[in-house]
Amino acid sequence: MTRAQPVEIWFEFASSYSYLAVMRVEAAAREVGVSLHWRPFLLGPVFLSLGWNDSPFNIYPPKGRYMWRDMARLAAKYDIPFRLPSQFPRNGLLAARVAMLGQNQPWIADFARAAMRANFGEDRDIGQREVIAEILEALGLPAAELIDAAQTPDNKLALRGQTEQAATLGIFGAPTFLVGGEMFWGNDRLEDALAWASRGD
Amino acid sequence: MTRAQPVEIWFEFASSYSYLAVMRVEAAAREVGVSLHWRPFLLGPVFLSLGWNDSPFNIYPPKGRYMWRDMARLAAKYDIPFRLPSQFPRNGLLAARVAMLGQNQPWIADFARAAMRANFGEDRDIGQREVIAEILEALGLPAAELIDAAQTPDNKLALRGQTEQAATLGIFGAPTFLVGGEMFWGNDRLEDALAWASRGD
Repeated sequence: MTRAQPVEIWFEFASSYSYLAVMRVEAAAREVGVSLHWRPFLLGPVFLSLGWNDSPFNIYPPKGRYMWRDMARLAAKYDIPFRLPSQFPRNGLLAARVAMLGQNQPWIADFARAAMRANFGEDRDIGQREVIAEILEALGLPAAELIDAAQTPDNKLALRGQTEQAATLGIFGAPTFLVGGEMFWGNDRLEDALAWASRGD
Repeated sequence: MTRAQPVEIWFEFASSYSYLAVMRVEAAAREVGVSLHWRPFLLGPVFLSLGWNDSPFNIYPPKGRYMWRDMARLAAKYDIPFRLPSQFPRNGLLAARVAMLGQNQPWIADFARAAMRANFGEDRDIGQREVIAEILEALGLPAAELIDAAQTPDNKLALRGQTEQAATLGIFGAPTFLVGGEMFWGNDRLEDALAWASRGD
C-alpha cells in the first residue's frame, strides 16, 4: 500500500516544454509509484486572459531564442529527439480534442507522446487531420472513428470546460503538475511534483 | 590544472530567483572547481525594453502567486531563509551600485548574499542607505566610504554600461549564467551551467 497522491499533468500539444514533460512523466511516475492523470487543455485562451495573443516566446524574441537553445540542450540531456519546428506554435486543437476523448483511456500516454514527438521531434504539422490519423493508426486505434468522436459538440465542450478549469485553478502555463492543491509549473518541476506526491501528505 | 571555463552570474538584488542562486552559487562552483564572476545589473531597463514597467510577477497575478509559493518550497528545499517581502520588487539600485564597485573584490560574494538575505530572508528594505551601510559594517568594510564611491558618476555609469551589456548579450531575466557564449536562465539552471563549464569546451 502506497500513501502516494496522484499527479495530474496539464499539458498543451503546442507547448515546447510540455513536450519534454510528456515524454518523461509516465516512466518517472511509475518509478516512484505515483499514479498519473492526463489533463490536456488549450493554452491559447489562458494566454489571452493574460493579454498575450501569441506564445510569449514569439512576443519576446530574446526569450524565444533562449528557449529553443534550452530545448535543444535539454532534449540532448534527456535523450529525447528534437528538431526545430518550422512552425511555432502549431495548432494543437485536434490533438487536444483526441486527448480529451482519451484522457482516461489506456492509450492516452502513447498518443500524447506520439503527437508531441511528431511536432517537436519530427517537425510534422499535428494541426493536420492526416497526421493525427496516421499517429492513431500506428497505435492500432480506429483513427477515423476517434477523430470524428473528438469533434462532436460534447467533446469540444469538454475540452473547453477543462481549459476553463485550468484558468480557475490558477494555471498560467504548461506543463503544470497538480498534486492535491499544490501546483508545480514547468518541465523543471516534474521531479519536485513527484517527490511531493510520494510524501503522501 | 583544470580545463573548466569560468561562469558569470548576472543577477539583480530585487529578483526573487536571483536570491536562491546567489545563496548557492559560490559553494556549488567551488565544489566543481569552476571560477565565478559576479555581474550585478538592473533588471528594470531590461524589462522596459520588453514592454514591462513592473515585475512580470506583479503584471501577471497568477504567475506572481505561484512564484511566491515556489520560492517558499525551494527555499525550504535548499535550507535558505525565506520571508515573504512586504514590498516587491524592492529598489535594488544602491545595492547594485555597491556590488558593481566590488564585483572583482574579495568581499563581493559575502556582500551579495547578505544584501539578498536582507531582502528575501529578513524582509528589510535594501533600498535604504542605512540598511546597506549596516550590511557593509557587519562584513567589516568601510561602509560610508564604499557607499560614497558607489554613487560617483563613474560607478553609476559602469553599472549602466553593464546593464546595457546584459541586454546586448540577450539577457532577459535574472539570474542568468553565462559560460563562454552559452546562456542559462534561472536558478533552475545553476547546476547545468556549472556542468557545462566543467566540460571545459
